[in-house]
Amino acid sequence: MKAMVLTAPGELVLDEVARPARGGRDVLVRVTHSGICGTDYKIFNGSIPVRYPRIMGHEMAGEIVDAGDAPFAAGDKVIVDPELYCGACFHCRIGQTHLCPNGLLLGRDANGGFAEYLAAPATHVFALPGAIDPRAAPIIQVLTTCLHAQRQVEIFPGEYVVVLGLGVTGQLHAQLAKARGATVIGVTRSADKRALAETLGADLTIAGDGDAVRKVREATGGRGPDVVIETTGVVQQLAAAVAMVRSGGRILMFGIITAKEGALPFYDLYYKELSLINARVAKSEDYPGAIGLVERGLVRLDPLISDVMPLAELKTAIGLLGSDSSGPRMKIVLEHGLN
Amino acid sequence: MKAMVLTAPGELVLDEVARPARGGRDVLVRVTHSGICGTDYKIFNGSIPVRYPRIMGHEMAGEIVDAGDAPFAAGDKVIVDPELYCGACFHCRIGQTHLCPNGLLLGRDANGGFAEYLAAPATHVFALPGAIDPRAAPIIQVLTTCLHAQRQVEIFPGEYVVVLGLGVTGQLHAQLAKARGATVIGVTRSADKRALAETLGADLTIAGDGDAVRKVREATGGRGPDVVIETTGVVQQLAAAVAMVRSGGRILMFGIITAKEGALPFYDLYYKELSLINARVAKSEDYPGAIGLVERGLVRLDPLISDVMPLAELKTAIGLLGSDSSGPRMKIVLEHGLN
Amino acid sequence: MKAMVLTAPGELVLDEVARPARGGRDVLVRVTHSGICGTDYKIFNGSIPVRYPRIMGHEMAGEIVDAGDAPFAAGDKVIVDPELYCGACFHCRIGQTHLCPNGLLLGRDANGGFAEYLAAPATHVFALPGAIDPRAAPIIQVLTTCLHAQRQVEIFPGEYVVVLGLGVTGQLHAQLAKARGATVIGVTRSADKRALAETLGADLTIAGDGDAVRKVREATGGRGPDVVIETTGVVQQLAAAVAMVRSGGRILMFGIITAKEGALPFYDLYYKELSLINARVAKSEDYPGAIGLVERGLVRLDPLISDVMPLAELKTAIGLLGSDSSGPRMKIVLEHGLN
Amino acid sequence: MKAMVLTAPGELVLDEVARPARGGRDVLVRVTHSGICGTDYKIFNGSIPVRYPRIMGHEMAGEIVDAGDAPFAAGDKVIVDPELYCGACFHCRIGQTHLCPNGLLLGRDANGGFAEYLAAPATHVFALPGAIDPRAAPIIQVLTTCLHAQRQVEIFPGEYVVVLGLGVTGQLHAQLAKARGATVIGVTRSADKRALAETLGADLTIAGDGDAVRKVREATGGRGPDVVIETTGVVQQLAAAVAMVRSGGRILMFGIITAKEGALPFYDLYYKELSLINARVAKSEDYPGAIGLVERGLVRLDPLISDVMPLAELKTAIGLLGSDSSGPRMKIVLEHGLN
Repeated sequence: MKAMVLTAPGELVLDEVARPARGGRDVLVRVTHSGICGTDYKIFNGSIPVRYPRIMGHEMAGEIVDAGDAPFAAGDKVIVDPELYCGACFHCRIGQTHLCPNGLLLGRDANGGFAEYLAAPATHVFALPGAIDPRAAPIIQVLTTCLHAQRQVEIFPGEYVVVLGLGVTGQLHAQLAKARGATVIGVTRSADKRALAETLGADLTIAGDGDAVRKVREATGGRGPDVVIETTGVVQQLAAAVAMVRSGGRILMFGIITAKEGALPFYDLYYKELSLINARVAKSEDYPGAIGLVERGLVRLDPLISDVMPLAELKTAIGLLGSDSSGPRMKIVLEHGLN
Repeated sequence: MKAMVLTAPGELVLDEVARPARGGRDVLVRVTHSGICGTDYKIFNGSIPVRYPRIMGHEMAGEIVDAGDAPFAAGDKVIVDPELYCGACFHCRIGQTHLCPNGLLLGRDANGGFAEYLAAPATHVFALPGAIDPRAAPIIQVLTTCLHAQRQVEIFPGEYVVVLGLGVTGQLHAQLAKARGATVIGVTRSADKRALAETLGADLTIAGDGDAVRKVREATGGRGPDVVIETTGVVQQLAAAVAMVRSGGRILMFGIITAKEGALPFYDLYYKELSLINARVAKSEDYPGAIGLVERGLVRLDPLISDVMPLAELKTAIGLLGSDSSGPRMKIVLEHGLN
Repeated sequence: MKAMVLTAPGELVLDEVARPARGGRDVLVRVTHSGICGTDYKIFNGSIPVRYPRIMGHEMAGEIVDAGDAPFAAGDKVIVDPELYCGACFHCRIGQTHLCPNGLLLGRDANGGFAEYLAAPATHVFALPGAIDPRAAPIIQVLTTCLHAQRQVEIFPGEYVVVLGLGVTGQLHAQLAKARGATVIGVTRSADKRALAETLGADLTIAGDGDAVRKVREATGGRGPDVVIETTGVVQQLAAAVAMVRSGGRILMFGIITAKEGALPFYDLYYKELSLINARVAKSEDYPGAIGLVERGLVRLDPLISDVMPLAELKTAIGLLGSDSSGPRMKIVLEHGLN
Repeated sequence: MKAMVLTAPGELVLDEVARPARGGRDVLVRVTHSGICGTDYKIFNGSIPVRYPRIMGHEMAGEIVDAGDAPFAAGDKVIVDPELYCGACFHCRIGQTHLCPNGLLLGRDANGGFAEYLAAPATHVFALPGAIDPRAAPIIQVLTTCLHAQRQVEIFPGEYVVVLGLGVTGQLHAQLAKARGATVIGVTRSADKRALAETLGADLTIAGDGDAVRKVREATGGRGPDVVIETTGVVQQLAAAVAMVRSGGRILMFGIITAKEGALPFYDLYYKELSLINARVAKSEDYPGAIGLVERGLVRLDPLISDVMPLAELKTAIGLLGSDSSGPRMKIVLEHGLN
């Protein structure tokens, strides 16, 4: 089959490789669309090391080719959960499969979706309703991570929720919080992203500059929001979240902070009785809910696609990801062009 | 002051009585609007006995006349939480003030709101935002009981919620579930109430006949809803809730069942692993949230008012409540006409 | 291999049958000990129909014979979770594997543990720490069902928990509630079971007669317990639970009620704001916790064994189960006699 | 009455002052015992500024002198919740009275318990059961803060809980976690405190040196504890908590961190999916539970008293608090010596 193969950091070629073998519990999927994620960018440039050659890609939609024993039929449209787990470790045994230390991410620790075909365990493959555009379907993987995170944060209708950062995950969090009845305020430097968030239902957006904390407090009756969802992964933004949230509020640390330094206002965490909630990836159990959210129109994915490109142009597409994150670029979807 | 005074069961007269004294922790409120509830009907006809003479009425809105030490100003528009508690018993001491065995309901155990003036503890008086129509404001008391109940039931966006019965509380529950992102299905015999629910955002309504369980299951992909909110207080409807809900779902018993007999499908409770959740009245703590829901338009109250009458016609109004509950009548609001 | 085979209701013979084949995800276990449950009794007498011939038994401990790909070694002592699930249905997909409508119970819907060997999925096999007596290990399956149920009931140290019925599950619930810091009161007609409960840590036991509600309320400061765990499956006991529990308390319906009639005090459910919590079987995820409870001595199983008999005497043993449940008999454990 | 009056930082004198007036909702209490807290030390030395003259002291027990309208009798033994709240602000209105921005701490923002008499709202006064030693009763205020915090952290029997720091609050947390069925490991530099923790039921204690993380992981099967309760308020200890806790575990930040700098291992928070839970003071609603824990022997206070001194020696006693925290000194209780 054809696949985009990473042979070394920065070395990405369209190649002919063996079609993946379908194991006993697997289904074989023809990949029709895939999304590119920041993780792919880091694997590509070598900052996340992998074993080469590697086929990247962990956001993908496609069609069943061989269902094996699973209750699918050839041609069924599906998406794939790329987070595999061992099933035997402590975490798997207590149901925290997403924290399995032996887990593999397809597209990083095993071959992934930037290819014609993919084999995946039937437990990780989910039927895609006809109402969902297959081009947007790879983004559901991203949505599951937002859903998994928001399950850990109480939000009641009428509460104020601020989303810091309005990239793809920020836009998804804003929509999900809106679906939960919140009054949603988005904060970002990007005028384009603010406009998009407002189109998608945010009640208010605010420029992500030095005045953001003050403006958010003003917009929330002087008290501060009930919940802040931090999606940028920048320590200073987390500190801003602590500063703006009301006492007794909740903070979801969604953006992954890779910085090793950076002071947190510890005393305020105490004084305002704030819990910092972290969430990592998602569980397979989050997929039915995420699919339902999209199917029922509670979360819209299509407007998050800024570029559609052929799979063969993956290298160009990944290059685009490296540009300024304050611009209008959102999700790049690849059409595998082989349909 | 003028007040509607119940001197014996069925004996309700407009009379001149002493204005209530404002105790040390109280504010004095001029009542401008009040709502009539089934409890008033039962007090009126004697099936809930009270000490006579009694001024009924526990859903009320008005204006501050004398704020005492409380942070209100004369003329402030307010609503009143009529559920007083002792503050000293076990339940009050652990924060379950709504279960206080020494509690008083204004309008039943002490004089209430069908009068020109009312004195109430400042802790039980809440500012009414300008955006909320004072005519609809008495219904917020009813909304607090729905909010208190739904706080005990997890509902995640995209889940199916069925509301059995679409009277005032059913319509409020449907709107609240919708605000939480649910796909809402209302069930009632009344075509008028179905139409109203659809106007207020229900995704689907179903006739409340012998086919309702089957139709609900069909409308929920054959599986049954995730949550059923029973508002009728009829045992057979509770049994229907058990029959229709999916395994692992939740049932909120909101309608008060006064019947002493009536079989429940106990084995199904086990087999489907269903919890039956009960909720009683509300806590003062539920008022800010309920007010916010109305202020932000997440719950609409105005369409629930079917009649506006002068306070002096209370007896006629209560008589209307006794008529067929399957008709179009919803909340009757009294204008105290003394403004 | 040798197995006890049920060929028809009441027809149970020691026979030579084929050793079970180990499927791709299975491990093969030599069963050394098994427990007999009320479900076995009902299968035996035909009130739970099965396909014949059938090897019953779903509480079992043994040793690994063939681990396949799983991280076990031959000779490892293990227990087996007998509740299999399909992995593909809605419930499995959202993580409610214990509610899988396609699930099989080993020993009822497929061959079980009253035999020399058993094949089971590796995901359903759990290592048994050396500190746990293999004779008592089959009872861990029962403990998982109690653990699964109590996970759904908040109990805070210092609260009063009443356990109605002190059979095997009642004794387990009492110990688990005690481990959670509760003051535990057990209620049963059986003097022997009361004595056993006190030996195992219950703070108080009360005779299960018409005075029990009054005595429980007296023993709980006149207020009633915070939690009642009903293990008898008798509607009248559930009504007693409602009568004795304090307002705002919780009731766990653990005993399976098969009666179709029987009035519940519905109004009290409302007035006391009581939730009725149901739980069904357990999830594989409950096994590590249950094993840990026994390993650390928080729950003692050995005193719950009233009889140890050879596997070949299964028919006699099952007969003993049919006798008066108010007597001293607790769990009957079978030694497979092949060690 | 006699009182210890702070007239300026470091200036503490036994003086004759007016007995406090009992307001309308208050009871008048003769203080018999009080405890000294680190906050008193900071008020004394001026690092927490107050308005002078000020009577410090917020941990106190005594007897009712004048109950006003409250259901107490003269001579009743009581303890006092020193955290007053306004009842009118947003936080009070939603039930987060402990976060009231207008709240007063008796002994800091208003006169407190280092005196013969104290007036306090009846809602803040709790009957002390006869089984509790009045000398130890002031420590119940400290216990409420631990209880309030642990209510926000799930702990299931059989889980590993590590307590970092074994001062008074560490010893209370360790006992409370033990009461919840945890296997408790205490960590401190102090050999005396380790011995005390073991006496009070800790399963294991470990020296709080550079090897602590490794030793804790070893003692928890290589995996790390399920929960870490950090009581020292030192950033490096919080980082150690993150390092030692298992993935998917919980961290309670109980020690108040006043440092403004200090790196947290942010990436590990994500990778291990850790939530950092903060808790501030307590609610009045936590008192009945805390009293019950002591009454039933689940938490022992007497062994936490290291010194009993007369009230008149308060200045000496506060000086002792300033000494090395790694020593054997625990709670200093003052006898008001006026009984």
